[in-house]
Amino acid sequence: MGLCMSLAGRDIISIRDFTRFDIDHMLSAADQMELQAKSGSDILRGKIMATLFFEPSTRTKLSFESAMYRLGGSCIGFAEPSTASVQKGENLSDTVRVVENYADVLVIRHPLEGASRLAGEVTDVPVVNAGSGSEEHPTQAILDIYTMKREFGHIDGLKVAMVGDLRYGRTVHSLAYALSLYKDVKLCLISPDLLRMRHEVLEDIGRNIDFEEGKDLGKILGEVDVIYMTRIQKERFADLAEYEAIKGSYRLTQADLKHCKKGAIVMHPLPRVDEIDADVDGTIYARYFRQVWYGVLSRMGLLALILGAIT
Amino acid sequence: MGLCMSLAGRDIISIRDFTRFDIDHMLSAADQMELQAKSGSDILRGKIMATLFFEPSTRTKLSFESAMYRLGGSCIGFAEPSTASVQKGENLSDTVRVVENYADVLVIRHPLEGASRLAGEVTDVPVVNAGSGSEEHPTQAILDIYTMKREFGHIDGLKVAMVGDLRYGRTVHSLAYALSLYKDVKLCLISPDLLRMRHEVLEDIGRNIDFEEGKDLGKILGEVDVIYMTRIQKERFADLAEYEAIKGSYRLTQADLKHCKKGAIVMHPLPRVDEIDADVDGTIYARYFRQVWYGVLSRMGLLALILGAIT
Amino acid sequence: MGLCMSLAGRDIISIRDFTRFDIDHMLSAADQMELQAKSGSDILRGKIMATLFFEPSTRTKLSFESAMYRLGGSCIGFAEPSTASVQKGENLSDTVRVVENYADVLVIRHPLEGASRLAGEVTDVPVVNAGSGSEEHPTQAILDIYTMKREFGHIDGLKVAMVGDLRYGRTVHSLAYALSLYKDVKLCLISPDLLRMRHEVLEDIGRNIDFEEGKDLGKILGEVDVIYMTRIQKERFADLAEYEAIKGSYRLTQADLKHCKKGAIVMHPLPRVDEIDADVDGTIYARYFRQVWYGVLSRMGLLALILGAIT
Repeated sequence: MGLCMSLAGRDIISIRDFTRFDIDHMLSAADQMELQAKSGSDILRGKIMATLFFEPSTRTKLSFESAMYRLGGSCIGFAEPSTASVQKGENLSDTVRVVENYADVLVIRHPLEGASRLAGEVTDVPVVNAGSGSEEHPTQAILDIYTMKREFGHIDGLKVAMVGDLRYGRTVHSLAYALSLYKDVKLCLISPDLLRMRHEVLEDIGRNIDFEEGKDLGKILGEVDVIYMTRIQKERFADLAEYEAIKGSYRLTQADLKHCKKGAIVMHPLPRVDEIDADVDGTIYARYFRQVWYGVLSRMGLLALILGAIT
Repeated sequence: MGLCMSLAGRDIISIRDFTRFDIDHMLSAADQMELQAKSGSDILRGKIMATLFFEPSTRTKLSFESAMYRLGGSCIGFAEPSTASVQKGENLSDTVRVVENYADVLVIRHPLEGASRLAGEVTDVPVVNAGSGSEEHPTQAILDIYTMKREFGHIDGLKVAMVGDLRYGRTVHSLAYALSLYKDVKLCLISPDLLRMRHEVLEDIGRNIDFEEGKDLGKILGEVDVIYMTRIQKERFADLAEYEAIKGSYRLTQADLKHCKKGAIVMHPLPRVDEIDADVDGTIYARYFRQVWYGVLSRMGLLALILGAIT
Repeated sequence: MGLCMSLAGRDIISIRDFTRFDIDHMLSAADQMELQAKSGSDILRGKIMATLFFEPSTRTKLSFESAMYRLGGSCIGFAEPSTASVQKGENLSDTVRVVENYADVLVIRHPLEGASRLAGEVTDVPVVNAGSGSEEHPTQAILDIYTMKREFGHIDGLKVAMVGDLRYGRTVHSLAYALSLYKDVKLCLISPDLLRMRHEVLEDIGRNIDFEEGKDLGKILGEVDVIYMTRIQKERFADLAEYEAIKGSYRLTQADLKHCKKGAIVMHPLPRVDEIDADVDGTIYARYFRQVWYGVLSRMGLLALILGAIT
């Protein structure tokens, strides 16, 4: 499309709501934030962000709050529903219509698919989806893409391995959609059978992006630019023996990285458990902690855009 | 009295501590806040508000915090006693004498009657009662009154129906006292027998205000300016069958509103469960969400007054 | 040593990491804060403090937050691990390497000894230990020392009684070490046998400070300048009868204070349960609430120093 549509006042619900032009716009907003992040800024002074977390997620909440404070804004909200009036039986749309009076932007995390979309329909205040159900986590996808942009200078042409739980992990779906907006990106989807990416996601992204599926990370390790690791949760397996058998083969160690492509990077949405051995942390490949910093920058950029502080 | 007593440094414990002159003063402070709420303000810069919530109430807490932040202040506090040092057996007056060192104003919610009053006696820092026991919730009353003022231009002469749980609902007591300070206000108290307003409250307000009790909302719907709905809690009924029988008759629908007086408004302290049908939300009568906004304005006004930022 | 080592960027992990010169420097920083605390200040504007409380402690958290806000900074964090990603099995060093991207200073409270030290080794951002395990609570020691400095004008030569639980109370260990840096300080350690100060602490401080142990507060009450009371926790006693027998003798009343030295003061890290009778609160000896205020000042001073806002 390439048409310039302002992001001021827009909701950030699904990565699928945006064009490549929009995403590029968000990435360059993130670029502008580096200086402001370090020196502090006042461009969101007087603005209030409400975090409505119906499901706990400390790191996402702190990342948004850090972004808001670094731009001079304020934060209110709740971290879990137990302390919220949802206990009194209030429905989500009433909660949203109340909180829109308290804040200039709402950041919502909810266990149910569609919750953020509903919230966005109910209120005129911009809504940011900070994770809903098992499918969407758009700001994570933006920070992931931004990490690649910063580390390689471009996204077009990258070869990206996604490894581990591709079925339930909400970050990988949003990231796959985001990558499918770019040119000549190739995805290697590495997972046990039980945790393969869902058919409908594959069908959707398959129109724009080349992908192959596999079970063996070792086979493609020498070819990819990005190794995007994810956590495999024990709870996904009915048979614990199966989990134990699989676990080891989706674990990255320093030894494995000897077979890497030159300049390759390792990413992870965090928290990790043991998918990435601690001995990887000190290598030239590790980017998962720097990724956290890029997350602050990209959320600063998003907040500044949708609140109209930058264009 | 009409005597001009400054509100700077005053506690807001009970609506009964104030004259009509005081309340009118608070309402005009709220009026001054509209512009500052939208553009952001710095009149409370450097000031800290502590919210001591010994009982959870997300919406009240967020409303106060939004008010404080919009005036440039900061907020600290706790949302439930489980994380507080009260767990270690500390009494309320010690907690207050500690926290007065951390903040410039204390906002207290407590399950026990008299807790805020005690707090106010212990400290020189102004104390705001954000709900204590089943009787008082003065800032809710002020925002309710302010809503009527904004919607009708005056409070004198209004006819107000209070509907539902008039026995345990703390907002209706404070509101009834507040209304009794005005001229020619008439109250219609509509509730099941079990939930009638307490005798001592009636006696008290009856000196200054005309009221009638009833069970049937339909009968008086055509006469009143304000329909103030409240939540009926199942837990109040020993006999669940009795609750089920009553529930339906205290539920307002769009169809009911055909019999309304022209210009009448529907209010609710929120959260609602099903006392007001969702089909009322889009009607010209509904004011319960705008009421939330008036709540922010009136709390901004109160904080600015008691912290001496305006006079 | 007397060597001038800047505190900018330093961790505050253990009181034992500091020289007398350092501590005196912190005390004079606290002195500078009195005016800023009252009028509000902007010297930490744009800076973010993260409070990582893996163990609840409302008053310590609020004290740090109040200090940060009074200097114009912002605060993020969590109050208990239940809402944190530690639930997902993340280790402390990963949490720290994430949060260092969100904040300019980390304040950590953790049930395990050594947690803050570990955190400090992992990150370049300054780390403040707000209590770890049963041994260290350095900022409490600094505020205690600062209280004595403010009340007596000096610390050298003071005679200090520490009363109650000297075995498990983390504040007394840090305080004893801090006092051992000064000249001619004498400690009277008053506790039941079961709760005597640990041998290794005594050995350590005994090199620099004169101390005597005893069980009877009454005996030394006429000699000491400072009576530092602490809470005796029932849980420490296997035999409840023993607890009941002991409890009363470590309780300070107004009557006891008739035997005090002129100018003596009573301190307590709070919260108290019943070690200090309420009738002491109004006497000229009580300093435990003013101590809270000194705590805000000394934490303001520390934050300003380690964040490089003052030197």
